[in-house]
Amino acid sequence: MTRIAVLGATGYAGAELVRILSGHPEVELTVLTSRQHAGARFDSVYPSLSGHLDLVCEDYSPDRVSNAADIIFTALPHKIPMEIVPELIRRNKKVIDLSADFRFKEAATYEAFYQPHSAKELLKTAVYGLSELYSKQIQNAKLVGNPGCYPTSVILPLAPLLKKGWIDHQSIVADSKSGVSGAGRSLSLTSHFCEVSESFKAYKVGDHRHNPEMEEVLSIEARKSVNVTFVPHLVPMSRGMLTTIYATPAQNLTLKEIRDFMVSSYANCHFVRICPEDSVPNTLFVRGTNYCDIGFKLDHRRSRLVIISAIDNLVKGAAGQAVQNMNLMLGIDERTGLDTVPFPL
Amino acid sequence: MTRIAVLGATGYAGAELVRILSGHPEVELTVLTSRQHAGARFDSVYPSLSGHLDLVCEDYSPDRVSNAADIIFTALPHKIPMEIVPELIRRNKKVIDLSADFRFKEAATYEAFYQPHSAKELLKTAVYGLSELYSKQIQNAKLVGNPGCYPTSVILPLAPLLKKGWIDHQSIVADSKSGVSGAGRSLSLTSHFCEVSESFKAYKVGDHRHNPEMEEVLSIEARKSVNVTFVPHLVPMSRGMLTTIYATPAQNLTLKEIRDFMVSSYANCHFVRICPEDSVPNTLFVRGTNYCDIGFKLDHRRSRLVIISAIDNLVKGAAGQAVQNMNLMLGIDERTGLDTVPFPL
Amino acid sequence: MTRIAVLGATGYAGAELVRILSGHPEVELTVLTSRQHAGARFDSVYPSLSGHLDLVCEDYSPDRVSNAADIIFTALPHKIPMEIVPELIRRNKKVIDLSADFRFKEAATYEAFYQPHSAKELLKTAVYGLSELYSKQIQNAKLVGNPGCYPTSVILPLAPLLKKGWIDHQSIVADSKSGVSGAGRSLSLTSHFCEVSESFKAYKVGDHRHNPEMEEVLSIEARKSVNVTFVPHLVPMSRGMLTTIYATPAQNLTLKEIRDFMVSSYANCHFVRICPEDSVPNTLFVRGTNYCDIGFKLDHRRSRLVIISAIDNLVKGAAGQAVQNMNLMLGIDERTGLDTVPFPL
Amino acid sequence: MTRIAVLGATGYAGAELVRILSGHPEVELTVLTSRQHAGARFDSVYPSLSGHLDLVCEDYSPDRVSNAADIIFTALPHKIPMEIVPELIRRNKKVIDLSADFRFKEAATYEAFYQPHSAKELLKTAVYGLSELYSKQIQNAKLVGNPGCYPTSVILPLAPLLKKGWIDHQSIVADSKSGVSGAGRSLSLTSHFCEVSESFKAYKVGDHRHNPEMEEVLSIEARKSVNVTFVPHLVPMSRGMLTTIYATPAQNLTLKEIRDFMVSSYANCHFVRICPEDSVPNTLFVRGTNYCDIGFKLDHRRSRLVIISAIDNLVKGAAGQAVQNMNLMLGIDERTGLDTVPFPL
Repeated sequence: MTRIAVLGATGYAGAELVRILSGHPEVELTVLTSRQHAGARFDSVYPSLSGHLDLVCEDYSPDRVSNAADIIFTALPHKIPMEIVPELIRRNKKVIDLSADFRFKEAATYEAFYQPHSAKELLKTAVYGLSELYSKQIQNAKLVGNPGCYPTSVILPLAPLLKKGWIDHQSIVADSKSGVSGAGRSLSLTSHFCEVSESFKAYKVGDHRHNPEMEEVLSIEARKSVNVTFVPHLVPMSRGMLTTIYATPAQNLTLKEIRDFMVSSYANCHFVRICPEDSVPNTLFVRGTNYCDIGFKLDHRRSRLVIISAIDNLVKGAAGQAVQNMNLMLGIDERTGLDTVPFPL
Repeated sequence: MTRIAVLGATGYAGAELVRILSGHPEVELTVLTSRQHAGARFDSVYPSLSGHLDLVCEDYSPDRVSNAADIIFTALPHKIPMEIVPELIRRNKKVIDLSADFRFKEAATYEAFYQPHSAKELLKTAVYGLSELYSKQIQNAKLVGNPGCYPTSVILPLAPLLKKGWIDHQSIVADSKSGVSGAGRSLSLTSHFCEVSESFKAYKVGDHRHNPEMEEVLSIEARKSVNVTFVPHLVPMSRGMLTTIYATPAQNLTLKEIRDFMVSSYANCHFVRICPEDSVPNTLFVRGTNYCDIGFKLDHRRSRLVIISAIDNLVKGAAGQAVQNMNLMLGIDERTGLDTVPFPL
Repeated sequence: MTRIAVLGATGYAGAELVRILSGHPEVELTVLTSRQHAGARFDSVYPSLSGHLDLVCEDYSPDRVSNAADIIFTALPHKIPMEIVPELIRRNKKVIDLSADFRFKEAATYEAFYQPHSAKELLKTAVYGLSELYSKQIQNAKLVGNPGCYPTSVILPLAPLLKKGWIDHQSIVADSKSGVSGAGRSLSLTSHFCEVSESFKAYKVGDHRHNPEMEEVLSIEARKSVNVTFVPHLVPMSRGMLTTIYATPAQNLTLKEIRDFMVSSYANCHFVRICPEDSVPNTLFVRGTNYCDIGFKLDHRRSRLVIISAIDNLVKGAAGQAVQNMNLMLGIDERTGLDTVPFPL
Repeated sequence: MTRIAVLGATGYAGAELVRILSGHPEVELTVLTSRQHAGARFDSVYPSLSGHLDLVCEDYSPDRVSNAADIIFTALPHKIPMEIVPELIRRNKKVIDLSADFRFKEAATYEAFYQPHSAKELLKTAVYGLSELYSKQIQNAKLVGNPGCYPTSVILPLAPLLKKGWIDHQSIVADSKSGVSGAGRSLSLTSHFCEVSESFKAYKVGDHRHNPEMEEVLSIEARKSVNVTFVPHLVPMSRGMLTTIYATPAQNLTLKEIRDFMVSSYANCHFVRICPEDSVPNTLFVRGTNYCDIGFKLDHRRSRLVIISAIDNLVKGAAGQAVQNMNLMLGIDERTGLDTVPFPL
């Protein structure tokens, strides 16, 4: 059994990792760290898991983690991973980092939107963990920068079409809507129940740090500089992310051509489901799952393609994709531990 | 006191009319009709209003309504108004219709998206009831076609800019999000609690009947044919509508120029609030009110203007605007009966 | 115009006071204090009120408040009012305190459940502000201890029956359910959206500080020591409180006798609505209003009376009742400023 | 592989059965029936399950079902099962019925609350499927009457205490709160989103048909006639049921004695979790699981025991318990197919 540590286990992404990994048949959770809950049983923080694991949360120690674990998930706020991951890599551990610290190829881009980067040398070998696009590289990675939730929901539907040259790369608008869990477990008025209920709003308009992330990856795929006008919104629900993408086709295309191409592009990708033609994605249909559902509509009269994607921001948008990447690194079926039957409601 | 009838009083738009009108100081509610609840006290259908009115719902009768009311609100499903309104107009009644039957200038457009129109002659004199744009015409109208909720949320932020020529009229995308009350009180799986909770989805993509409505009005304002790619979405909340509009400026403009222009365009319009520069609209801030809040953001790098509007779909999007139009027709302050202090949450 | 100060104006109860008072025709808001938001316009904290008041939040100063206001509402955390109210009373101001500091007749009870009381002398003259029960005393009060939300929802339905001797005073169970706004605007995991959504739970079982408050008042009304087993629960909604009370009738009674007696007990109380026999209270029906709806059911076979009450915890449970008390103190109709027509949904 | 049919597969309980059974390692789903959706793929009705099963919904035919299935789950409205189950039993099929038709020992009780019973002879051999109490009988049952959700939430916490004689059998009040999925997928105003959101209400006060069900079972366990004052309430959430029980201890007992006794009573029952002393049940902690969490509190001063239970009404309250019963009938571990790790939120 591969031994696993989750650092930052009591945040929402961390807890979701714990959920998935404690039901994963090929690995064993050995260390959970939590600054805030060190000393407490994990299931006293999340009583739903009572009966499913006995672990007690610990403070972080590189020795303890390195001795007890083979693969380490870091579900920590930006900046902390770049401080602790280099040592773990030196000790020959494999790391899957859920922060933004190892997602960028260009340190300058990271530094423009986050802060000075103290482990730039690792950016060269870190692999961007969008499982469907980079499975080969992930299989051999020592360090995976797990994608942000918004970029996942934008890149999966767009990358094949941009690579194919079927989309005007300057025409893209991505209007995203996220459930509140995306803001994490840290207290803030933005996640305060009475401020969220009956509230729908945009935030960080044209300013969100996931914007350069999706643009860097899409530009690589398109082999030209792709701009995305990106506006995230907050939905009064816990989990789920829906992105509506508007783009101008670069040539005359039928809906069938587009859909067929996407079906074949993701033919071997279990977790991408292309919706039937008469159906559209719905966050409820992917809740608690690692799926990314994608649907299409062509607005002929206005020459605009509408692409809609739905994911669970905590699963395919964070913990689920991280485990999918771990499976790739372990050389096992990417579905292992992630194939629970979804809830009908 | 002007005497008022509300036809279709027990639907959500009708009930909202009853709420506003029973608190209105210058009018008196005299007749409420409801096919489903004829014979029942209105406050047995909506117990919240107990103590605020004594009226009993009736079946519709043109004689009864004409004798007892001076102004008639029709909050009925499409098609019924065009059957009953002509007679009311003949009897010299004033009518404010909340359906789509009298919104279009072009009968052909109506017929392409709805059904054959049986009262086309009235379309010539009917006034489109977007209070801020057509207040003069509304003052003298006998028949007002009250705007749809989506068109209200799209036209108010765009009309001045299109008229001014500041927006590329082929560049417009409107991504709208509506609370569930927009689907009305009629039972349907779309409004079934467990199908809505934790669900976010688009519907009628590129197909919604409010699309030609907004295009007809915007084209008139712009004096050229305006296309809008319009995608409505359903939000798990009761009330509220937020529309995020993406458009390419037709010339170099600063955010300040745009905002200043909009502030002056709506200077005399109490119910349009232009947000402070550091703030964005939120459906919670307009809940239960007749306001339309509008905010702006310029995405320089991608040459795209983002405009966000928020309304309460049942108030400014339906019943509130209808009462605002009635006030204009009565020659009284447009705020009368609509200036309740909003709830902080 | 009577001049009004609200201390603690940016908490939820404070903001609700601001909402009601800024629409009140007989008073003028002159001072709002807020430790956290001193210096900011109130409508920048609560943008929904933009256009309805211009006030800027201030730090608390006894001079400023005393000079600018005649009646002072204190919507502050427990313990602060007992420190600042004595001085305001000395300066001949009238005070309506929404904390627990002046609710108890017995200082010892307060001290057992809260902390040492530093203004005990004021407890003798402070009036418990349950408007319907103590309107005479409130009219002449200098200091009103405004009731807790739970006690309001328990005392109004029980007091007349206990006073009449129709209920076994040792048989009472009160199972209460409150919306999340009851926990206020202070950040806490209990009000964090993802912890509340799809969550229903009891809290402070048999331990809540509103328990002695309701027992003290009910004992006074019953003229014997009344015990209440009280369990509050948290409902995933913003506003509203429903209390289901179980009690054994002290004698053979029909449902009609009980209902008729309650109707006559509250005949002159506008804000108590006794439900029709075939109907039960619903928090949605009192949302945003000052009503307390009460319904009854007799479980013959098990000799148990079920009484259900519904209020809006922020209105009749806090700010609305406080304004109702102010109206009584001003000698004006208790409905003034509180008679907005309720929303149907 | 045991072959399974689910009749009424597209209702909420049916769909939940499909979810659990299609992930169950020891059985194979072979037939799904649905009157409303006959001819449609199951995953077109519930797209979340796309990729997890290929079955098409069928009309009911006794031949088809008998030929293709060994065990049959009937998730149908009351009255239909008593019409079709006798024939299935005659054909030597095993049946687990989720309606009320086979829950009662006394036909007269059923007939007093439902309708005339047309298959009374089966009531003698039908086993009440409360897995924890009747596992032995269930193992050998041909026909299981699967318990109602409310009875499950009331009986599990009370049965051991009543059997032990520790509770005054005439003192019991059960105040239950259920998520909206309990009302099923059939359209009704009670489940209409805008009528549920921000609404909390009681319904069928003292009148609910689950009341005689819980009383019959508790009376058998207590060996005396047990009365329960039972009031169900509706919570604005999809899944979850919390019951707060109030009862008078029959003798002096400490909280520790009660808790220890309950821990030992359910020592071998995986799906009953007795909460730690400092913790209370929460519907969020059992969401999507087959657990029943139970907590206790003793109100010494008022001599009243408060017991709180939480279940997911669709799982332990319906489909999950049905599968647990199937596992018992198959002689396999009761957890099979039901041990998915719960979600932290």
